Amino acid sequence: MMHLILADSELEIIPEKIRNHPAIKRSKSLILDASLHHTAMKRLQQWQRRGRPDIVHIFLLIANESILNKKGMLRVYIHTRNDEIIYVKPGTRIIKNYNRFKGLMEQLFKNGKVPPEGEALMEMKEGSLKDLLNELKGKKILFSMKGKRKRIEEAMEKDVICIIGGFPSGDFLSPVHEMVDEIVSIYDEMLPAWIVEMEAIVAYENKFIAGKL
Amino acid sequence: MMHLILADSELEIIPEKIRNHPAIKRSKSLILDASLHHTAMKRLQQWQRRGRPDIVHIFLLIANESILNKKGMLRVYIHTRNDEIIYVKPGTRIIKNYNRFKGLMEQLFKNGKVPPEGEALMEMKEGSLKDLLNELKGKKILFSMKGKRKRIEEAMEKDVICIIGGFPSGDFLSPVHEMVDEIVSIYDEMLPAWIVEMEAIVAYENKFIAGKL
Repeated sequence: MMHLILADSELEIIPEKIRNHPAIKRSKSLILDASLHHTAMKRLQQWQRRGRPDIVHIFLLIANESILNKKGMLRVYIHTRNDEIIYVKPGTRIIKNYNRFKGLMEQLFKNGKVPPEGEALMEMKEGSLKDLLNELKGKKILFSMKGKRKRIEEAMEKDVICIIGGFPSGDFLSPVHEMVDEIVSIYDEMLPAWIVEMEAIVAYENKFIAGKL
Repeated sequence: MMHLILADSELEIIPEKIRNHPAIKRSKSLILDASLHHTAMKRLQQWQRRGRPDIVHIFLLIANESILNKKGMLRVYIHTRNDEIIYVKPGTRIIKNYNRFKGLMEQLFKNGKVPPEGEALMEMKEGSLKDLLNELKGKKILFSMKGKRKRIEEAMEKDVICIIGGFPSGDFLSPVHEMVDEIVSIYDEMLPAWIVEMEAIVAYENKFIAGKL
């Protein structure tokens, strides 16, 4: 089983501090989104990296449609900058439309799960990256430019936890470097989360899916 | 060099026939989008598969941020259902926000290029899939469930043209099966375009990027 974690992802509700800004009041969604709230965000600490639900969206679109997931060998988790964890049910089809996806994220922050009634497809709980890692079993690989340059396939094990940063620039907020078994770098420049993700997923498929022709 | 074509993609301007529908009049964008225009689209032929700029968006987000593209070994083309071809300059950073991306596509349909002044990052020209294939050099591989089950790496050649369908269901509109050297199937079910794309890109990287650790 591959556990795939988007860590310290920049997904959050619009902070109280900037809710009265005109750029925010125009907004239909409660989810902070840098592409809409850029002007207002300058009042926030670390504003350059925050408000990136788009990274979470594309990350999930790739994970949940992947062959690895269809084979039942992938579990996906979104960990946020404010230490929430989203658990995604493996069969879940991620909604393709970005605006509706943000609507779902809003529901998650409000109700803790979607859909609000019946069996949850996604659930949000409070928890740090460390809490999440304690729940899971497998070799912990962190993808970071600080790591050793290595082919992903060599680092992969059958039971593995892959940790990818869910932010556009800068470094992890969580003290993740101390929590893992190996730190792997796959390229000389910082890559978007979804590119590291696709390299990791295909590497795992190539190594462990028997009969992947 | 890998040439990557999203073929018969469901990217188009809202057809004249449905422009007076209330669901369309509410819309800010001129790009047909099934997630917004669903009700109005039922008057169109093949409405179930049309209006999918989201597929084009995620396809480009993956291609242009990929390691293969950063290494200068990838060229990307979007071919549409109405036989337009979008040429994407390799260094182009694709805009992350979906609504703004649709705005750019609208500009492309209007002006034939973006940005409208100066060197084009994307250009749109009239042309069929056949016209495009005639411009390019390399083994032509079509990804389709009708093909032979095979590891992508085995089919890959250094100069290769990979053709992936840019529609959510059904089959190619272009007579593409007659135009290619090999038809490859990589899974038992239909996969989204971006999943086939990521498998193809990583397979090419693994086979041909010297020094990919």
